[in-house]
Amino acid sequence: MKATQTFISTLKEAPADSEIISHQLMTRAGMIRKLGAGIYNYMPIGLRIIRKVENIIREEMNKAGAIELLMPVVQPGELWEETGRLSKMGPELLRIKDRHQREFVLQPTSEEVITDIARGEIRSYKQLPINFYQIQTKFRDERRPRFGVMRGREFTMKDGYSFDKDVEGMKASYAKMFDAYHRIFTRLGLNYRAVAADNGAIGGSGSQEFHVIADTGEDAIAYCPSSDYAANLEAAEALSVLAVRSAPTQVMQKVATPEMTKCEEVATLLNQPLTDTVKTLVLAVDQFDEKTQQLLPGKIQIFAVLIRGDHELNEVKASKVPGMADFRMATEAEILEAFNATPGSLGPVGLKAGVTVVADRTVAMMSNFICGANETGYHFSGVNFGRDLPEPIVADVRNVIVGDVSPDGNGTLEICRGIEVGHVFMLGTRYSESMKANFLDEQGKAKPFVMGCYGIGVTRLLGAAIEQCHDDRGIIWPESIAPFQVVICPVSYDRSEIVKTTTDQIYADLMAAGIEVILDDRGERPGAMFADWELIGVPYRVVVGEKSLKEGLVEFQARSETQAKKILPEDVLKELSA
Amino acid sequence: MKATQTFISTLKEAPADSEIISHQLMTRAGMIRKLGAGIYNYMPIGLRIIRKVENIIREEMNKAGAIELLMPVVQPGELWEETGRLSKMGPELLRIKDRHQREFVLQPTSEEVITDIARGEIRSYKQLPINFYQIQTKFRDERRPRFGVMRGREFTMKDGYSFDKDVEGMKASYAKMFDAYHRIFTRLGLNYRAVAADNGAIGGSGSQEFHVIADTGEDAIAYCPSSDYAANLEAAEALSVLAVRSAPTQVMQKVATPEMTKCEEVATLLNQPLTDTVKTLVLAVDQFDEKTQQLLPGKIQIFAVLIRGDHELNEVKASKVPGMADFRMATEAEILEAFNATPGSLGPVGLKAGVTVVADRTVAMMSNFICGANETGYHFSGVNFGRDLPEPIVADVRNVIVGDVSPDGNGTLEICRGIEVGHVFMLGTRYSESMKANFLDEQGKAKPFVMGCYGIGVTRLLGAAIEQCHDDRGIIWPESIAPFQVVICPVSYDRSEIVKTTTDQIYADLMAAGIEVILDDRGERPGAMFADWELIGVPYRVVVGEKSLKEGLVEFQARSETQAKKILPEDVLKELSA
Repeated sequence: MKATQTFISTLKEAPADSEIISHQLMTRAGMIRKLGAGIYNYMPIGLRIIRKVENIIREEMNKAGAIELLMPVVQPGELWEETGRLSKMGPELLRIKDRHQREFVLQPTSEEVITDIARGEIRSYKQLPINFYQIQTKFRDERRPRFGVMRGREFTMKDGYSFDKDVEGMKASYAKMFDAYHRIFTRLGLNYRAVAADNGAIGGSGSQEFHVIADTGEDAIAYCPSSDYAANLEAAEALSVLAVRSAPTQVMQKVATPEMTKCEEVATLLNQPLTDTVKTLVLAVDQFDEKTQQLLPGKIQIFAVLIRGDHELNEVKASKVPGMADFRMATEAEILEAFNATPGSLGPVGLKAGVTVVADRTVAMMSNFICGANETGYHFSGVNFGRDLPEPIVADVRNVIVGDVSPDGNGTLEICRGIEVGHVFMLGTRYSESMKANFLDEQGKAKPFVMGCYGIGVTRLLGAAIEQCHDDRGIIWPESIAPFQVVICPVSYDRSEIVKTTTDQIYADLMAAGIEVILDDRGERPGAMFADWELIGVPYRVVVGEKSLKEGLVEFQARSETQAKKILPEDVLKELSA
Repeated sequence: MKATQTFISTLKEAPADSEIISHQLMTRAGMIRKLGAGIYNYMPIGLRIIRKVENIIREEMNKAGAIELLMPVVQPGELWEETGRLSKMGPELLRIKDRHQREFVLQPTSEEVITDIARGEIRSYKQLPINFYQIQTKFRDERRPRFGVMRGREFTMKDGYSFDKDVEGMKASYAKMFDAYHRIFTRLGLNYRAVAADNGAIGGSGSQEFHVIADTGEDAIAYCPSSDYAANLEAAEALSVLAVRSAPTQVMQKVATPEMTKCEEVATLLNQPLTDTVKTLVLAVDQFDEKTQQLLPGKIQIFAVLIRGDHELNEVKASKVPGMADFRMATEAEILEAFNATPGSLGPVGLKAGVTVVADRTVAMMSNFICGANETGYHFSGVNFGRDLPEPIVADVRNVIVGDVSPDGNGTLEICRGIEVGHVFMLGTRYSESMKANFLDEQGKAKPFVMGCYGIGVTRLLGAAIEQCHDDRGIIWPESIAPFQVVICPVSYDRSEIVKTTTDQIYADLMAAGIEVILDDRGERPGAMFADWELIGVPYRVVVGEKSLKEGLVEFQARSETQAKKILPEDVLKELSA
């Protein structure tokens, strides 16, 4: 293709509202243009890349036996009411009314519609398993859309849904999709990781996320370099740092720690390592009447959660401790009431009955530790469970840190940052039960479909790829999704006969070889031309100029390299294949 | 592909709400499933066909130099207010509000957004001409969605927009699109016609429609078999049937025509041909104050429009007669007031001043004609213009009929029915002026873009193709958009070794040759299997059964034919190429 046959529109300046590099570069490179908050036009170069991503996804989904269909953007509200999501979902579900005042939603995903299709079309276990997917426009009315295509309102997503007759089948379908996702992200040429995700209500090993690794990623990922363990920080299991609890060797003492409210300060004052300190976090759970499910005003259960001084609470894990599902941080008044003390000097010793003490696994193995004395300006040292206070409830309630032993026992953990671009999920019968979507099993008995769902954010992937692959000159696309494989930049194309002849010959050769080549025939100055293509991120560049041609050569340079090399015009194809 | 790798779901019965054959067949063949009024799921087989149509459109648009991009489904209302369409358009424009109560629309087309893109990106005449298009989901909130994909609410459309520096440029861009549309519809394998459309406000030869010819089409098309003249009936020019007006030979006489209100009855009574009669239609135009543009209550202009007894009024053409732009049919009271007579006996003789008489071109050439006498039960015969009543205003206000002389003079007109699937339109500066979308011309002067717009209804095309190509067994797809080129139907695939071997060999050969083949491995009985594929409309069928194989042959049959022929298994590819 020639540059004048498409639309190149680059900008020197990034838009004022762009906070991250991918948003800046996509806008500057003319791939997107903002139409409204979180709503973008996909300009010709941007759309080319989207189509490439879509095609890779489509090919691998088809290879994995998934079947493409297309569900409407505008979906009837009554279907969403069957699962309760119409009322339960927040305002990011955009509800609209048609001319007859009937309620519809713009699809953020399509669980309801695909389940409706399944209950209409699939009667027998003989038709199972089946796996449908679509690549379709989605809408989520984000409160604060930002980061360009990374958190837009209208976006393109591949969403797939598998239907099985039992849990084993679902797991097999899930495994197929998991493998397909690996192939997809590998083909996309991205450095990515599949990580265990929080399982939510499903339980088991029911949910994994695919993250593109990037320093600017919004999620922290714990992974083990010497095994394939990886998990979202939310979900990464933290083992105890200590294998066994040493016997007490110190007497518990109250020590003055004037105006010191932080473990670090206390440890320094007492000349002890921070790893000998324990911090006490106070969580509250409002109590409900079991029968009426009405809130019982003023009735709360207080939890004292103990974390080693250098560790941090993991709220997702904490919410899984029995009784703590809907916890919140206690108010200062509630803390004063329960501890007769204020934050900064709290500890688990000598507590009132009714306060439940939950110790992180590591804390549970500590002895002779330091904690608040429930008296402003004082801490206890030499504290030991079983002697100075009762044995606590033990749970995994902290974030892992670098150097923690990997839960699979094969090494220690590292932490990196990632951008979630895919999610595979074992749904089970959550949707099929509420929508009465049944099939007849071998015995002729009606059973709900056992479902899985599988998403990839198509437009988001563009942003994630750029966050991972860029430099100060612009984007560096992986070859599989680059808008073009190679750009030919002729200098004085319209004024030099030899430049024109050589350029046209290379262009014709590459076209004949099926290479996606773009010839920059816009007549721009070399500097502007080079800057444009570096910004757009085409993997290879061939510069055809009179100077090099005097030696019979053209310049060939990979986008990821800083130096060009001079080669014979007829060797361009060979270089590209190398 | 094997049938078990996709999703085949045929129905014996058409849905109760399906009024036309394409809706019935698409549903029965499992290509669409209704989700709500005018909203459909595109099932796997249906989506395959859509993608084929899209790809043909895309290839031809690209070849014609148009550039693909993608504009959002959800578009900001303020942009639509700039052209006034936000308030002017009817309720088929679905207006929605986001969580912040900001107004948006679901795009029915994208003139506003593309014009916004142009004013942001295109500064100079040097960047012109440029032609953008998208293939995108559209929404029109039809009052009464019906006819399946033919008049749905959510649908896919290719909409393109050209930008030029002047009217000549626009005409050239338009001509390119016109040619591209011919190539598209030719490749789609459809019997179609490009017809002149009503030009609306633009004037000139500014609008043409592409119609798929089908007896069930909603539009009447006049065309000339001996030339390339074709026009929507609304727009087809009607010449006078009579070349000159004969001199008066009869005296005007009042004749009793008791209880006769129709030209046919009067002609029979008087033993005269219907072509000697003239009917008088009374139209009213409400008058406005020129300054305030307020309606002047009770002030109307009455027009008596004269049409030959066997002709029909063309309302679109009538609205173009000076002063008649916003006409309506006059009420009985208004008619009584103006004619002192009631409908059935109206005529143009002896009218009050203030009633404007407009005669169709043919009527203007008539002499000695018969018309109402403005007295119940009486008509005049032997009426002549210039003698019995003043010369009228003459205009083309009737529909053409079969046998009329073609406006290009090259033969006579026929009338057929068509389904509009494409429309090309010279927009001019209507959008660019209201949105202040300007470029700088050669003299550095700001000028509005001169635009064209070009639409093809992608999903509608499926319905139109089926209306044209079907029989009582189902759909007969043109090869270019058939979901598969050929289906192999093995009888006893799983029980006969020779059937399986032969089938697999044919399948492998066709796959290797790049033929889109589907192998029906579902294990259905032959009758059910054949019925499914005839319903779905695959162009060719190969039946592999033990009986024929005893002679070493398989059965090959085109969907459009009633007889199979027996051929060698290795000749299937040759038959398909023939």
